[in-house]
Amino acid sequence: MPVFDQTYQTLKEHLQQTAIFSSIEELLGWDERTLLPAQAGSYRADQMTVLAGLIHQRRTAPAVGEWLDTLESSLSTSHPADSPEAAEVREARRDYDRESKIPQKLVEELAKTSVLAQQAWAEARAQDNFAEFAPWLEKTLDLKRDQADALGYTDDPYDVLLDEFEPGETAANLRQVLSRLRDELAPLVAEIVATGKQAPVELLQRDYSIDKQKSFARFAAKSTGFDFDCGRIDLTVHPFCATLGPKDCRITTRYEENAFSSGFFSVLHEAGHGIYEQGLPDQEFGMPLGTATSLGIHESQSRLWENFVGRSFAFWEYFFPKLQLEFASTTRDIALDDFFFAINDVRPSLIRVEADEATYNLHILIRFELEQALLNQDLSVADLPGAWNEKYSEFLGVRPPDDAQGCLQDIHWSGGAIGYFPTYSLGNLYAAQLFESANSDLGALQDQFRRGEFGTLREWLRDKVHQHGRRYPAKQLVQDVCGEPLSHEPLIRHLRSKLQPLYGLA
Amino acid sequence: MPVFDQTYQTLKEHLQQTAIFSSIEELLGWDERTLLPAQAGSYRADQMTVLAGLIHQRRTAPAVGEWLDTLESSLSTSHPADSPEAAEVREARRDYDRESKIPQKLVEELAKTSVLAQQAWAEARAQDNFAEFAPWLEKTLDLKRDQADALGYTDDPYDVLLDEFEPGETAANLRQVLSRLRDELAPLVAEIVATGKQAPVELLQRDYSIDKQKSFARFAAKSTGFDFDCGRIDLTVHPFCATLGPKDCRITTRYEENAFSSGFFSVLHEAGHGIYEQGLPDQEFGMPLGTATSLGIHESQSRLWENFVGRSFAFWEYFFPKLQLEFASTTRDIALDDFFFAINDVRPSLIRVEADEATYNLHILIRFELEQALLNQDLSVADLPGAWNEKYSEFLGVRPPDDAQGCLQDIHWSGGAIGYFPTYSLGNLYAAQLFESANSDLGALQDQFRRGEFGTLREWLRDKVHQHGRRYPAKQLVQDVCGEPLSHEPLIRHLRSKLQPLYGLA
Repeated sequence: MPVFDQTYQTLKEHLQQTAIFSSIEELLGWDERTLLPAQAGSYRADQMTVLAGLIHQRRTAPAVGEWLDTLESSLSTSHPADSPEAAEVREARRDYDRESKIPQKLVEELAKTSVLAQQAWAEARAQDNFAEFAPWLEKTLDLKRDQADALGYTDDPYDVLLDEFEPGETAANLRQVLSRLRDELAPLVAEIVATGKQAPVELLQRDYSIDKQKSFARFAAKSTGFDFDCGRIDLTVHPFCATLGPKDCRITTRYEENAFSSGFFSVLHEAGHGIYEQGLPDQEFGMPLGTATSLGIHESQSRLWENFVGRSFAFWEYFFPKLQLEFASTTRDIALDDFFFAINDVRPSLIRVEADEATYNLHILIRFELEQALLNQDLSVADLPGAWNEKYSEFLGVRPPDDAQGCLQDIHWSGGAIGYFPTYSLGNLYAAQLFESANSDLGALQDQFRRGEFGTLREWLRDKVHQHGRRYPAKQLVQDVCGEPLSHEPLIRHLRSKLQPLYGLA
Repeated sequence: MPVFDQTYQTLKEHLQQTAIFSSIEELLGWDERTLLPAQAGSYRADQMTVLAGLIHQRRTAPAVGEWLDTLESSLSTSHPADSPEAAEVREARRDYDRESKIPQKLVEELAKTSVLAQQAWAEARAQDNFAEFAPWLEKTLDLKRDQADALGYTDDPYDVLLDEFEPGETAANLRQVLSRLRDELAPLVAEIVATGKQAPVELLQRDYSIDKQKSFARFAAKSTGFDFDCGRIDLTVHPFCATLGPKDCRITTRYEENAFSSGFFSVLHEAGHGIYEQGLPDQEFGMPLGTATSLGIHESQSRLWENFVGRSFAFWEYFFPKLQLEFASTTRDIALDDFFFAINDVRPSLIRVEADEATYNLHILIRFELEQALLNQDLSVADLPGAWNEKYSEFLGVRPPDDAQGCLQDIHWSGGAIGYFPTYSLGNLYAAQLFESANSDLGALQDQFRRGEFGTLREWLRDKVHQHGRRYPAKQLVQDVCGEPLSHEPLIRHLRSKLQPLYGLA
């Protein structure tokens, strides 16, 4: 066997063996967040710590670096630059370098601080006491600066942190695209507010039995293409999607009796993540080409199914009669038009996770600006609450009455996730670009949705996005599939075309 | 630090670190049997195999043998023979020797054969085709003979296999006690059959809503003392109890709408196992003294709560009014006396897992005799079905119409569990001995049950049995607590005193 093939095989075995441990770690985490008995948390932490240590050891084993050296030195003569093997080596190198560059001591301190800071954050939020969280945010930012230094960067430490979640993306590019987005979004939201028109959201707040919500949401997730032979849906507090093996993808959600849309759309959202995971090639499980390419692309899949499909009129032409059968007494007097308006309600609000499709990105923009300022020390931690509230007034015209509903609302920063928030907006932008391209490639998707057919779209996404794993970085993937780079225009077109008739805009 | 203490600490760290991996393996197995998506089985097997290899490696690491040598050489001068440390070293040595003596190749062949033989067994049972399973049973028996040779034995290869589940027990002793048991049981069952009296079991076959069964059984498990802050109850096909950490014990069950007693008593049974696990000392988790002492003692705990408590009249004096409140329309016309008779129905039957308290041990006796004969080659595999059916005629007066309801009904032999069955009878015998001693120590337990109080009994079991882990082998534990060795008499006394009035026996 040629040297490349032999070494490649050795590396693949090592990485896939490591994936066995990391998939077990996923099970431990999934179980912790869905089922773990109240007092079992401390031993679960021990189990996860031991496994994390073993995984880190395997990922940074010097042999991996040596195999990669060998592969890189023979790659150019044995494989084209755009071959799967070249992508696999490129991405394995990226992983190895990122994981090896950070000193063990810093890894441990980041892990420990993240646990303690999250506890402090939860406490601070519950008591609306920012001062209690402030020193932990300081410490987290210090460590993230150290991490950026260890990883190395050219212009901006933010870039290298963002790169963890969205490889190859830069703060400069995002600033440009997101500011264009804001220039269009802010006036759109203002126009909507100015109409004084309010969607009949009370229709969604009636008594929707939780058992029926469960079976209805399951039916919808199955219809869009989530494969329950290779996955599950369970209950949790904060919905998420976890992959425990090549045929074991688990989504989670929560239901409230008087909030139909909250549970239903969170299932469509998580099922979108799940369909992406289920579309990755099984035989590459644990390898870069068997892994999602970026958080932005991941979020584009969840948002596409949640908003572009699930909040479309055609979708409900199919599902609304079924909803009326299932929840007969609750929905008997509701007209489809009113229901459709209710699920597309737009109104400026304080809480990101409850925000609608139009205002959502303004919440992200605020966080994106603030976390850059914090990291670069243009904003002190002490001044964060004031700056947060100012931005909410400016961007959304609302002002948090307290920090619990302000800068303490999200868990991300306490867990050390700096550079994560913009991937939510990237998801929305990419979803719009991909959905526009799918419509133009496939035509008349709405006619299919109306009949409950989602297979054509799903297979298109499989073909264009899912099956490639990390073969193409997000930027290149979107350029190739959509014929244009990251852009705010498709999202704006989508929102305007849906919201203009609903709100009677000019 | 003295050599003993230092080495002891090192060994303890090693064993408790190993327990982290084996508790993760428990999670993988529990999840597989309760939640795993249909297609995820093959990767789950990979995950379990990798972890099993790692655990075996840690358990048989030569360093463990060296630490044990060191500890043993200084033990007699540093610690009394009956100290916890002496027990810990004795049991750790036992584990190390058993795990090290079997050659790696045989370990792997046993593991592989067990998976394949179980699949063949499931197929053979479904198609009532013993011939399909026969070669796998041959192969299993061959491997078990090899295993017995590797472990070494004095008289009987059966002893050393039995010893895996019931340390220190011998076939000779069991033959003696169980034949005495049979000499009393068989006439008792014959007397009952001769009365022609039939318990009104149809009362248990009405419509009992599954949701209500769940909450009622949960309430009963909580009342007997299963701690849901340190455990869960979930659904499965074959009920079991698994320990995933010192504060994470999970029991499982199944419910059928028209079989109230099946779900309810399986919960009491598994909760009994769970209460034992929850009573082991947390700080010794993963050490011999933090582990159950034998399967027989484990089964005694489940049987004690299921049969001696849960099928007692006093228990239902407390629970029956609650049952009537919960299942009002279903149970309104049922009298407590009739209900009590129904849950204590005795009738010879074909299927072990559905057998009542009196006939159950006759099912075990048949398996115990046959598996000894098979192992010693006094009985050929080909002759098993005929021998099985003969025994059922002789012991129980019923004859299986086919092998699916005959010698193919149980999974145990296909999984290589030879020497496991008698631990079920040991459980029944030990339960009777322990319950009789508890009654004599504590007095008037029935008065407490009648008021829904089970704490006194539970704490007595904690004190006498649970807290010791493997400090005392089962034989010694029972001798110490009950003042007598293994005996059939308390069980016979218990059965006679309950069944005589119900069936109007002399």
